[in-house]
Amino acid sequence: MIGRLNHIAIAVPDLAAAVETYRDQLGARIGPAQALPEHGVTVVFIDTGNTKVELLEPLGAASPIAAFLEKNPAGGMHHLCFEVPDIAAAMARLQAGGARVLGDGRPRIGAHGNPVIFLHPKDFTGTLIELEQVPA
Amino acid sequence: MIGRLNHIAIAVPDLAAAVETYRDQLGARIGPAQALPEHGVTVVFIDTGNTKVELLEPLGAASPIAAFLEKNPAGGMHHLCFEVPDIAAAMARLQAGGARVLGDGRPRIGAHGNPVIFLHPKDFTGTLIELEQVPA
Repeated sequence: MIGRLNHIAIAVPDLAAAVETYRDQLGARIGPAQALPEHGVTVVFIDTGNTKVELLEPLGAASPIAAFLEKNPAGGMHHLCFEVPDIAAAMARLQAGGARVLGDGRPRIGAHGNPVIFLHPKDFTGTLIELEQVPA
Repeated sequence: MIGRLNHIAIAVPDLAAAVETYRDQLGARIGPAQALPEHGVTVVFIDTGNTKVELLEPLGAASPIAAFLEKNPAGGMHHLCFEVPDIAAAMARLQAGGARVLGDGRPRIGAHGNPVIFLHPKDFTGTLIELEQVPA
């Protein structure tokens, strides 16, 4: 079912500092910062050639990554995103197996304009997993 | 400097249970378990097509992931591994920039038989980063 790793997301307290670290120390290829107020984050994508690293900084008062950064003030790996060809079929299979979908259980539109869901970390070895529908 | 994301490693308390979750719930392509006593882990690789997810279970009394699992009993994302063409050049650049290399500061041979180093998470937004020398 799961296909390519679309990205690995890292929550950071200071996006400008994180960009500097990845660019100057690690020599990474960094994209432009994009504010996504509807998702409560500002994001920067790092292109690794085969996949992406997504740096996330909280935006606004109700950012979904605020609680994570309270527990991990220096930042840290936040979630993994795998591509699936059909998000409805993926949800049906996962829910039949007892896995929990976060939120109201319906896909929403993610940062790339595709439908996404998030799965409960307790059902997946402590890892927050995003599934993104990417047409084949 | 950094190239492809070689893998993202997830530490798990029970490798057989994690394999079942990734295979049966997520339909992932799972490789065979490999015991690596010299690294203190048993590993399973999941092939996502573009990169790999490495599931790590502690092996032996002095496993390097034991402390992580004490703090995160359900498991969780442990490190990211980026490929570099020349590990000595990468180390020289990073140390000149003030980044700390873990251990005795010399590359050792990693799970794929290539030289690897690990960088201090405090210098990289709370993320443990492995660099692996992969010939171009």
